[in-house]
Amino acid sequence: MNTDLETIRIQPCSAQSVELATGDELVIIDPDGQQVSDLVAFEQTNHEEYLSSGRSLDYASRLWLTTGDVLYSNRSRPMFTIMEDTCGRHDFTLTPCSKDTFKIIYGENEGRPGCEGNLVAALAPYNIGVDRIPIAFNVFMYVAVDAKTGEFSVLPPLSKAGDFVRLRAEMPLVVAMTACSAGQSNNFCYKPIDFQVLRHGS
Amino acid sequence: MNTDLETIRIQPCSAQSVELATGDELVIIDPDGQQVSDLVAFEQTNHEEYLSSGRSLDYASRLWLTTGDVLYSNRSRPMFTIMEDTCGRHDFTLTPCSKDTFKIIYGENEGRPGCEGNLVAALAPYNIGVDRIPIAFNVFMYVAVDAKTGEFSVLPPLSKAGDFVRLRAEMPLVVAMTACSAGQSNNFCYKPIDFQVLRHGS
Repeated sequence: MNTDLETIRIQPCSAQSVELATGDELVIIDPDGQQVSDLVAFEQTNHEEYLSSGRSLDYASRLWLTTGDVLYSNRSRPMFTIMEDTCGRHDFTLTPCSKDTFKIIYGENEGRPGCEGNLVAALAPYNIGVDRIPIAFNVFMYVAVDAKTGEFSVLPPLSKAGDFVRLRAEMPLVVAMTACSAGQSNNFCYKPIDFQVLRHGS
Repeated sequence: MNTDLETIRIQPCSAQSVELATGDELVIIDPDGQQVSDLVAFEQTNHEEYLSSGRSLDYASRLWLTTGDVLYSNRSRPMFTIMEDTCGRHDFTLTPCSKDTFKIIYGENEGRPGCEGNLVAALAPYNIGVDRIPIAFNVFMYVAVDAKTGEFSVLPPLSKAGDFVRLRAEMPLVVAMTACSAGQSNNFCYKPIDFQVLRHGS
């Protein structure tokens, strides 16, 4: 987190997109603590190449990624390196919440767009539609697993106010991030997310 | 497993595709034990709708799915119900092995297509390309997780000779399945997989 840089706010229950050049750094900040940001990424000119949970977890041999780990694309190329992580716990197994998620898990019928709908809105300038939203890198999302039964619990994030993750782009990227809309993920406190971009890329 | 039905063999390190109508049942059999089958599925006429690990795990609140669980599409619609499962342990977090997987994990440079390449070959009649191969339902794949560190180990499958999974199609589907090519997944014994189709769908 760099105090000289512009900090951009993602308002509660919304999303924003940003373009990164190779070498640029993206800092995702939880300004108030206990909030989740669902992050998806695509190669900047070829959106068929996207951030892949399955590839990243396979190469790390770990469910939870942190400083030093690499996030891979579906084509097995590095998309990001995690340079710094003051929280240490994130999820990379679940898809962004959506109006169907709210219906199925919470019995909620208001039709809120959820992170899925908000990501699609943020990615509209790139014509990346809803069927292209994969499992997100769910920054600060805390999913605890029972190693015997495989049952998991979505718990309040471990992030405290000011915690951040700093990611270095390893290829030109279009990235979209949310301030999460799912009550379970953020202890039913719908808060903002902040981000900064360090432009020292090529 | 029904002895009156035709049993189709997927030869070691290959894949096959099959079309299912709503209500049809697909039985995936491990004829010799300790072999894995990576399964992917698409809505039969709209391939933008595909089998989604992230949705299925979220709705089950469990990493490992078995009898009674539903496998969902990216559009949150049921694609399969697991009707019967004599093994009880499968993976739904990792992408199919590929020539890049072999290079990154095993240091192998022979360029074997892996399950990813074999699935693409099996899906060629449907014009489903490599960028459309998501995290597979890895039938019989045994991934043990350390609940504290998140580290996982790919262990020999728990399946014994004759173990099977019976899936009911909940929509018209194109399905592709492999006999897995990754040594780690099948205890370095590259074996066949068998399947049967019970046609009582609409």
